[in-house]
Amino acid sequence: MIIVGELINASRKPVAAPLEAGDREAVARLARDQIAAGADYVDVNAGLFEDREAELLCWLVEVVQAAVQAPCSLDSPNPEAIEAALSVHRGTPMINSISLEKDRWELLLPLLRGTGARVVALCMSDEGMPRTCDQRLAIAERLVEGLTGAGIPLENIYLDPLVQPVSTNTACGLELLEAVEGIMKRWPGVHTLCGMSNISFGLPGRKRINETFLVMAVSRGLDGAILDPLDRRTAAALATAEMLAGRDDFCARYLEAFRAGLLADR
Amino acid sequence: MIIVGELINASRKPVAAPLEAGDREAVARLARDQIAAGADYVDVNAGLFEDREAELLCWLVEVVQAAVQAPCSLDSPNPEAIEAALSVHRGTPMINSISLEKDRWELLLPLLRGTGARVVALCMSDEGMPRTCDQRLAIAERLVEGLTGAGIPLENIYLDPLVQPVSTNTACGLELLEAVEGIMKRWPGVHTLCGMSNISFGLPGRKRINETFLVMAVSRGLDGAILDPLDRRTAAALATAEMLAGRDDFCARYLEAFRAGLLADR
Repeated sequence: MIIVGELINASRKPVAAPLEAGDREAVARLARDQIAAGADYVDVNAGLFEDREAELLCWLVEVVQAAVQAPCSLDSPNPEAIEAALSVHRGTPMINSISLEKDRWELLLPLLRGTGARVVALCMSDEGMPRTCDQRLAIAERLVEGLTGAGIPLENIYLDPLVQPVSTNTACGLELLEAVEGIMKRWPGVHTLCGMSNISFGLPGRKRINETFLVMAVSRGLDGAILDPLDRRTAAALATAEMLAGRDDFCARYLEAFRAGLLADR
Repeated sequence: MIIVGELINASRKPVAAPLEAGDREAVARLARDQIAAGADYVDVNAGLFEDREAELLCWLVEVVQAAVQAPCSLDSPNPEAIEAALSVHRGTPMINSISLEKDRWELLLPLLRGTGARVVALCMSDEGMPRTCDQRLAIAERLVEGLTGAGIPLENIYLDPLVQPVSTNTACGLELLEAVEGIMKRWPGVHTLCGMSNISFGLPGRKRINETFLVMAVSRGLDGAILDPLDRRTAAALATAEMLAGRDDFCARYLEAFRAGLLADR
């Protein structure tokens, strides 16, 4: 399972303030804590500051990579910001994200060629958000063809089928889960990666809903998630779900997490 | 979702002692508590007392039905005990359980005809426990054919695909989940019902594992479970899982559970 730590996002107050003040240590601490808690990538997002996004995204990359030996997930739809951040990033980043929307596709794709980057590809086109499993699979097919056609190997593609709120349509959950399963069965080697929190939009008890939906998605083959790796209950749910989904030989990682006390507070 | 409350089982100490002492109130309280917590059926099991099973099962049925307006799940592989309990049960019980094992099938099936009872049918034959999804589906097919051939409507059949410990084989979880999905898609109208606790046999943190696996199974279509309805975390997991599985119009039952404080202690 690939975990992208979501906490360094300028839309969050504990990040916006240090970003404006140039407080390196506050950002560095968030990077260290997330990697220590098991994140594989540190997501960096400066989208709140639209007119300085490229400059601030580069600053975040530099501060994070001075603090931890880990790659970033460069989180922006803005080709200029992505290009600038790619030029300062060391190692192989994740790009979050491209989509089939015409402008985004045409401006971002040339930047990705030859970088070796992992690419998050949203199942979104100019026709808008997909609703059903079949709509997601149709967009996924065009994404896979386009990205592999541009020389990006299947193993570097993380399809995001786009979680939508169950409060607006009770079928949203199952359609998403079936899309995850469909994608993973259809293109062996490709990955899926989602943020879960949209599922609970408009409802109380959001953390429990997000965690429950994550468990379901892992059982369908989801192998990437952008989340808060410092949330112990999420980590416990994930360790348990991966074991039950057959991804933990001899239950070794589950038992290790249990002995480390991570599973104590059910 | 059909919930069978599992607590009145003579193999549990808080039941064995009252059963031996003829303490009606202790048993009645367990029945009332489980129904108040949302159980649809009260399971009764006197299998620990092999030589008096029929007599004690009848006593349990009588005490439970004097305490609550609800049917029992008559839990025994013993035709004599089932026949006796059927003769004292008021309303329509669940019979837990028949299987394809030759003796059990031949002795129990005649007792079920014409009773209108719900029938739990284990995916088990004389060839032993099934391992894979396909083995379960093959046994399920013979069970469905045999039971409907004996006049038992599909709607009264609860197939139990038999949960097995993930500690002995990491594939056990997914094989079970795929069997649930396969059964529900193949025979629309039929039900599935499991106990979850075998999944965690041999591992620490069993309640969390059972609850996580229940969430996964609900997302595959499981619509019945035998469990402890007094466990608040299980109830919370179930309310959340059913909403995410598209079974809760307007999230109404989830919101009601939230307002009742059932979802507070994530």
